Amino acid sequence: MKKYRIAVVGAGMVGKKMVEILVERNFPYSDLKILATRERDEEIAGKSFRVEETKAESFDGVDIALFAGTEGGKGASQLFGWDAVKKGTVVIDNGGDFRMDPRVPLVVPEVNSHHLKNHRGFISNPNCSTIQMVMAIFPIHREYTVDRIIVSTFQAVSGTGRNAVEELERQVKSYSAGEPIGREVYPYQIAFNAIPQIGGLSDEFPGYYTEEVKMVKETRKILDCPGMQVSATCVRIPVFNAHSECITVQCRRKPGLEKVRELLGSFPGNSLMDEPSGSIYPTPLEISGKDDVFIGRVRENPALENAIDMWVVSDNIRKGAALNAVQIAEILAR
Amino acid sequence: MKKYRIAVVGAGMVGKKMVEILVERNFPYSDLKILATRERDEEIAGKSFRVEETKAESFDGVDIALFAGTEGGKGASQLFGWDAVKKGTVVIDNGGDFRMDPRVPLVVPEVNSHHLKNHRGFISNPNCSTIQMVMAIFPIHREYTVDRIIVSTFQAVSGTGRNAVEELERQVKSYSAGEPIGREVYPYQIAFNAIPQIGGLSDEFPGYYTEEVKMVKETRKILDCPGMQVSATCVRIPVFNAHSECITVQCRRKPGLEKVRELLGSFPGNSLMDEPSGSIYPTPLEISGKDDVFIGRVRENPALENAIDMWVVSDNIRKGAALNAVQIAEILAR
Repeated sequence: MKKYRIAVVGAGMVGKKMVEILVERNFPYSDLKILATRERDEEIAGKSFRVEETKAESFDGVDIALFAGTEGGKGASQLFGWDAVKKGTVVIDNGGDFRMDPRVPLVVPEVNSHHLKNHRGFISNPNCSTIQMVMAIFPIHREYTVDRIIVSTFQAVSGTGRNAVEELERQVKSYSAGEPIGREVYPYQIAFNAIPQIGGLSDEFPGYYTEEVKMVKETRKILDCPGMQVSATCVRIPVFNAHSECITVQCRRKPGLEKVRELLGSFPGNSLMDEPSGSIYPTPLEISGKDDVFIGRVRENPALENAIDMWVVSDNIRKGAALNAVQIAEILAR
Repeated sequence: MKKYRIAVVGAGMVGKKMVEILVERNFPYSDLKILATRERDEEIAGKSFRVEETKAESFDGVDIALFAGTEGGKGASQLFGWDAVKKGTVVIDNGGDFRMDPRVPLVVPEVNSHHLKNHRGFISNPNCSTIQMVMAIFPIHREYTVDRIIVSTFQAVSGTGRNAVEELERQVKSYSAGEPIGREVYPYQIAFNAIPQIGGLSDEFPGYYTEEVKMVKETRKILDCPGMQVSATCVRIPVFNAHSECITVQCRRKPGLEKVRELLGSFPGNSLMDEPSGSIYPTPLEISGKDDVFIGRVRENPALENAIDMWVVSDNIRKGAALNAVQIAEILAR
């Protein structure tokens, strides 16, 4: 069995989780190097790793490079990605810089792994909030054709990075100690609050922030549906990890509710948690750390023809980022 | 000027806030008594009040009785409301028991005070999440006719009552101290979580919880639109006070975005906070304690014809409950 020389670029929350998941899933690697903006030692998955500074030469002989695309790794794929590809490395980029590039497949393995055929060495991982939405929509779309999506998100601070996790923690501890609450990462205090802004203002969609636009454009690209109608409102809430989404999908023909439940629950990577009479539905706290996308509150939308509503929760650092990237690498390694 | 003999029934968060607001707005009362399940002294708005036990006789000579409808006051309007009406008291009930009763007007003063004409002595205050939604929708509806509403809510724990506020506080303090986190009020830990269940399972709308059904039915009644299409997903988040809502409204004809902003901002009781480029939008932490309904993120929904999206935040204990009830009393007193 062939073994691969792997590089992970970025040693923030996502980069570390990529390393953890490669180890956890016994990815067949002969070499695993971790690159970041500065050299240091990091403890990851119980092992000590030497983190090297990312340079153009770092990719010599690397088969697959996973760019974490957040924090320390931000912009790294712009600086080093395409040069690495020229030297024969396959790049899997969790960053947002090339997702809409027509040369680049944007892949959720369970949904559109066929986009990996004839790739040109550079593959993008979708945005976290897009991945879990597409996982929940695709099984319905395949059967009933989804024409329209209206989504509101309830996003965890881990999506912003380690500094945001620390900020929520600090704010809550200050509150508990009766001390003044500071703020650096978000435009408003996040503890005990809800902030309807993720990203900067979009140039293309008036009044929308960039996270919302990503959900529109990436979903269309992944599902090969340029005309799919998508609107999103993305909100940050004081949850440490795992994003929740309240999704309305309108289908071309009337979806059967029991059939939809069956399609969702039997789709690889999805878990149905849906017994509302027993308060059984996913919550971010309960599913954080798990691999699957969890779906509950599946019901007919009484206000829109042929529409289904659901509540979709997933660990944004695992399936929303690191796991999805490793799954892409696994397909390439097969 | 006539002065009124007032009773407030319930001395939980809403009952106390009713008393505070009556004092704050100089309501013309000659007598203000507070009734609850048990006799005690309570400090409210800096004054000491003797809380009496609610009995049928408590309403003798009372002109207007405000039933808080939560906690201690729950069920009180069922026990005492109609008997008080028979004796000549006008009842304003914040509880949910009679809102859909055809004898009972369901009133948001800025929206449908005309429903108070020929009332039969019993008036209901809508549910908190309905009030702020209707305040944001009505100015648009009057001009463009709203046919469809899709809403997701981000609701504060104060809506559940004082015990839930204390639970969030306790959980956060346990977390900060590194101690085990207990849970009593909600089916899951609320700190650092999002719970997509408010109320019990509905008998009428399969898969919906009662808070969601209230938003559908109450909105139709308040706006006199039995055919209005409404769907809601109600989610509890770890915010102490003030509910947020992400609302999509579809109109019969194309709404002009600037006109909508103008209609929203000039409507009494509403405040427009909408400069997304400067991160200006309402958040629950910032508007808690204020009277107005705050509206931001007003934009065209790119996925639905003639539709507008907005983010609506309001203090659920003030405009969502106590203030709205006092405003009804003020109209009656005029």
